[in-house]
Amino acid sequence: MLPLTDVQISDPFWSRYINLVRDVVVPYQWNALNDLIPDAEPSHAIKNFKIAAGLEEGDFYGMVFQDSDVAKWLEAAAYLLAAEPDPQLEQIADEVIDIIAKAQLEDGYLNTYYTLKEPGNRWTNLTECHELYCAGHMIEAAVAYYKATSKQKILDVVCKFADYLCKVFGPGPDQLKGYDGHQEIELALMKLYEVTGNKDYMKLCQFFLQERGQEPHFYEIEFNKRGGVTHFGEGMTKNKEYSQAHAPIHKQDKAVGHAVRFVYMCTGMAHLAAVTGDPELFASCERLWDNMEKKQMYITGGIGSQSHGEAFSTDYDLPNDTVYAETCASVGLVFFAQRMLLLQADRRYADALERSLYNTVIAGMSQDGKSFFYVNPLEVHPDACKANQNYSHVKTTRQGWFGCACCPPNVARLLASLSQYVYTVRERTVYANLYISGEAKVDLNGNQILIKQDSNYPWEGNIRFAIRAAQVTDFTLALRIPAWCENASVSVNGVEQSLDGLIVNGYAMLEGSWKTGDQIELVLPMEVARMKGHPLVRQTAGKVAIQRGPFVYCLEEIDNGSNLHQFSLPRDAKFVVEEDPALFHGVRTITTTGVKHNANDWGEELYKRDAVLEESKIKMKFIPYYAWANRGEGEMRVWVEDK
Amino acid sequence: MLPLTDVQISDPFWSRYINLVRDVVVPYQWNALNDLIPDAEPSHAIKNFKIAAGLEEGDFYGMVFQDSDVAKWLEAAAYLLAAEPDPQLEQIADEVIDIIAKAQLEDGYLNTYYTLKEPGNRWTNLTECHELYCAGHMIEAAVAYYKATSKQKILDVVCKFADYLCKVFGPGPDQLKGYDGHQEIELALMKLYEVTGNKDYMKLCQFFLQERGQEPHFYEIEFNKRGGVTHFGEGMTKNKEYSQAHAPIHKQDKAVGHAVRFVYMCTGMAHLAAVTGDPELFASCERLWDNMEKKQMYITGGIGSQSHGEAFSTDYDLPNDTVYAETCASVGLVFFAQRMLLLQADRRYADALERSLYNTVIAGMSQDGKSFFYVNPLEVHPDACKANQNYSHVKTTRQGWFGCACCPPNVARLLASLSQYVYTVRERTVYANLYISGEAKVDLNGNQILIKQDSNYPWEGNIRFAIRAAQVTDFTLALRIPAWCENASVSVNGVEQSLDGLIVNGYAMLEGSWKTGDQIELVLPMEVARMKGHPLVRQTAGKVAIQRGPFVYCLEEIDNGSNLHQFSLPRDAKFVVEEDPALFHGVRTITTTGVKHNANDWGEELYKRDAVLEESKIKMKFIPYYAWANRGEGEMRVWVEDK
Repeated sequence: MLPLTDVQISDPFWSRYINLVRDVVVPYQWNALNDLIPDAEPSHAIKNFKIAAGLEEGDFYGMVFQDSDVAKWLEAAAYLLAAEPDPQLEQIADEVIDIIAKAQLEDGYLNTYYTLKEPGNRWTNLTECHELYCAGHMIEAAVAYYKATSKQKILDVVCKFADYLCKVFGPGPDQLKGYDGHQEIELALMKLYEVTGNKDYMKLCQFFLQERGQEPHFYEIEFNKRGGVTHFGEGMTKNKEYSQAHAPIHKQDKAVGHAVRFVYMCTGMAHLAAVTGDPELFASCERLWDNMEKKQMYITGGIGSQSHGEAFSTDYDLPNDTVYAETCASVGLVFFAQRMLLLQADRRYADALERSLYNTVIAGMSQDGKSFFYVNPLEVHPDACKANQNYSHVKTTRQGWFGCACCPPNVARLLASLSQYVYTVRERTVYANLYISGEAKVDLNGNQILIKQDSNYPWEGNIRFAIRAAQVTDFTLALRIPAWCENASVSVNGVEQSLDGLIVNGYAMLEGSWKTGDQIELVLPMEVARMKGHPLVRQTAGKVAIQRGPFVYCLEEIDNGSNLHQFSLPRDAKFVVEEDPALFHGVRTITTTGVKHNANDWGEELYKRDAVLEESKIKMKFIPYYAWANRGEGEMRVWVEDK
Repeated sequence: MLPLTDVQISDPFWSRYINLVRDVVVPYQWNALNDLIPDAEPSHAIKNFKIAAGLEEGDFYGMVFQDSDVAKWLEAAAYLLAAEPDPQLEQIADEVIDIIAKAQLEDGYLNTYYTLKEPGNRWTNLTECHELYCAGHMIEAAVAYYKATSKQKILDVVCKFADYLCKVFGPGPDQLKGYDGHQEIELALMKLYEVTGNKDYMKLCQFFLQERGQEPHFYEIEFNKRGGVTHFGEGMTKNKEYSQAHAPIHKQDKAVGHAVRFVYMCTGMAHLAAVTGDPELFASCERLWDNMEKKQMYITGGIGSQSHGEAFSTDYDLPNDTVYAETCASVGLVFFAQRMLLLQADRRYADALERSLYNTVIAGMSQDGKSFFYVNPLEVHPDACKANQNYSHVKTTRQGWFGCACCPPNVARLLASLSQYVYTVRERTVYANLYISGEAKVDLNGNQILIKQDSNYPWEGNIRFAIRAAQVTDFTLALRIPAWCENASVSVNGVEQSLDGLIVNGYAMLEGSWKTGDQIELVLPMEVARMKGHPLVRQTAGKVAIQRGPFVYCLEEIDNGSNLHQFSLPRDAKFVVEEDPALFHGVRTITTTGVKHNANDWGEELYKRDAVLEESKIKMKFIPYYAWANRGEGEMRVWVEDK
């Protein structure tokens, strides 16, 4: 089993977000699950469980995966409880767990849709009906709740369910050689294995992954068995790329299909590879990661270039205005990256994790925690979004909770569990992946170490670490030097260290016999960086984006006026970074003098020969991308003309 | 009635196209209509008429507007017969006319779909079912055939039909206050009025136009009368912008909705305004033209920025890669422009007509006349078109005849009738709108004038006119000076004319007492022009397009290699124009030395700070846009980075 860290976050940037999740998002979500939000589409998710538990009368209502909303809420609640006691929240959670337990059938089966609506059809439509997906979310919730509270009840429920799954699925003659159309169970089983030590769960994960995409194809087999009956048409059965079931995982070499499914699948793969050390699986994880990160990821850490199928497109096709870049996909990318870090300490995984987290993930939620983006565009023109259906999936303002409410609870559970992403521990090395202030308890072969991290990151790059240990302990503190940073420096107890030869895979490896009172300071200079896209990306050709520290910046109409495409950024632009205490709890804005093409003297003609556009100098003000669309509707743009 | 010109084209560029229509397109279309094309979707269009005529047994098959395919074929055939006798073609046409006549019902009604499939439901679903649209196409065909052959039969058929329509539709208590969901009947009635002089037809056109978009809304009224029954869902009834029925025509101020419907409607409006002189209608035509031409037209003369609804988007939203720009819409733009020229001699209409004709319209057809584009993109990346559904409507190679075969016959009928677009005559002025070699007979109040035009246009800008007249005749020869041309010059009988004060609305007005032997030479220097898009168009920001004469040029992968987005065109680029006799019957290519950004030293990272891309000089070879995609699949790009 992999070592765990216990981190208490106390961070100027992130604590506010975690408190928002605690004070706004999770309570709102609870009301939503209980249909207490006026004018919102009903969820019915809690009611479904109550009906299945025999506590209320009625019919199932909602999507086939409605149960997963309850599980995601419970998971987020568990993480909050792990961070801080909250008897009232715990009581609500316990009551929900009681209902869930009652809804479980004798044999361990747990799914309110099938129990209430199609009792005879269990396991007949894995392609479309998210049965194992819902199971996976319940397992994740149970693991989180058990770890937070040490209460066994929900863990027992999911173990009973998982034991039953181990009987149903497998290579045996009476077993089902199938897998879910929406990956999730795989990563969940790995978590359940981690917490229980029961290898059957790991083996079932392995089975699901190995079966995926094999011929004869499971989707076709069950489709024929059902006599061609479908829930949503034949799409899911026929388009196997959509759910990464077009080929066995070891033959897949590109990120394709539904982006969330892809990263969930890879998360399970990487976790399994980290546990088993299987080199072929490791290679598959790396290959798929590589394609995603090096050829299909937006600078904001968004993935999924097209709305159709919420899917990847192809290498280097990264349109900024017709983009999808679902919030959930970036949340999943964070999961995938974290598991890759378990597999191999390489800053590239943490860099991408950071990129997604500080940009697309938190852009997904409004500053007040009350509205959300599914789609995270890099360029928005409100008029065009309204008139042209090419952009119709791109919303110009965040929306309230959705009928299919995947993104808000996903953001909630990630933010509530952020403490799990700060460090990775491998043998006697503690890797600091993220710079988030707080205290980590690390168990190194029985030696308890406390590492206190303290900084004003992500706004400033001076990060201080203080060690407390009951006894002098030999270990390596590995500090990620992000790829965005040049000229990082490290000092130990006030003595500057040469980084020559100290960097391994992007981490500064500070080996030492550490004792209480030791102080490490990492300095990551945060210069404003002019970022360019790979020459094969046509949507960034001739354009530049601004990044400072982990934040990608953008122009908004409210600060710069309209027609942001008329702005260009000179090569020698000087940037002024300023804290604006009144804006979004103190963002650093970046201003510079740019050039704007004016339409003034152009006239009416749409096309003109030998026209030289009138130019004028103009102040350009950038804000961090995550904060866009919090001051009304307007144009926004990440990639700006490069002059 | 408006004066007509009788033009025989004999042109190095266009005669080949017209011959293609005669030798390839129209015969192919005939086979298609008769289901004689192996492996093609059946048309059944002729069979529907035979069944309705009682000549064969069977059921109706095809779209509700299947009849229009027969009409469009007959119309194209008529234009070919007008240009050149062809007894075999005429015999086939006469036989088709016999069938059509037999399919007409006693009261004049003619529509095989309703006759065969819904005999009781005539005029119950104008919103969706193209009943008057089919009528309009049959009228257009009849007018063309009558003019070509002087044979009365099909004209009688459509007059009987139109007389019946005049009874059915109108403001009277027993009449239907409706109009068609796909405009076409309006422009057709104007043609029928022109050839018959029967004002009832003009008045019916007027009625249809005036009723459009009035409240209470006709679509809703008939929808409710039908009890909500629809053919294709409620879309057409609810989304009234789609068919420009969202407001009365005099309150419409923007090109919206389905682009073909829009230009067909405007064609009827402009023709009616030209005949009646109604100033309000004229103003409406100008207002809608203005918006289309100045804010929503591609440099290629394409219109319709989005595939959804094959529709306009909004002002200055002109994406190059997700574009629609349907071939039919540009054909319709040619119709609209021609009618605007009847209304007002202004070169802007002829310029746009020329732009559409020489670029999008002929790009719609392959060089061999055998395959066709619906969608005419300005930027194509074959990999992305396959992987990303945003571009899925963009085909990278032309397709054979389509199930819904609108574009090929539309191109055919336009090219076959091209002679109608060369000149407009208004009182004693002959306006030369297009520079196409051939001979025009013009009747100026009884004086027959022959104007012979001779040039190697569009490749060269020297155009010679020779006059023949039975007697000396006072008239003005008005020569369009295209907006793309600088430094035009004109000489009359070898004497250079000063153009100062001679230009009215973009036409050089050569007043004179013309006699046989007079020679006029117009010289339109064809320099290579660097075209820029309006500063409000974000998709052309920082980009430049190359135009020479009426041709917009493009880069193709086959000439330039892949990654065309890496090319940029320096401000001081020198262009070499060369004739390539082996390429597409002798196109002029344009070559220059440009700059290419290389990916060589970049490495694998998708985003890099402070990266300066390696550049190298490279030859760039442009071909006329219309000829793209005739040498296999590859990238193509009109707008190139401006350096």
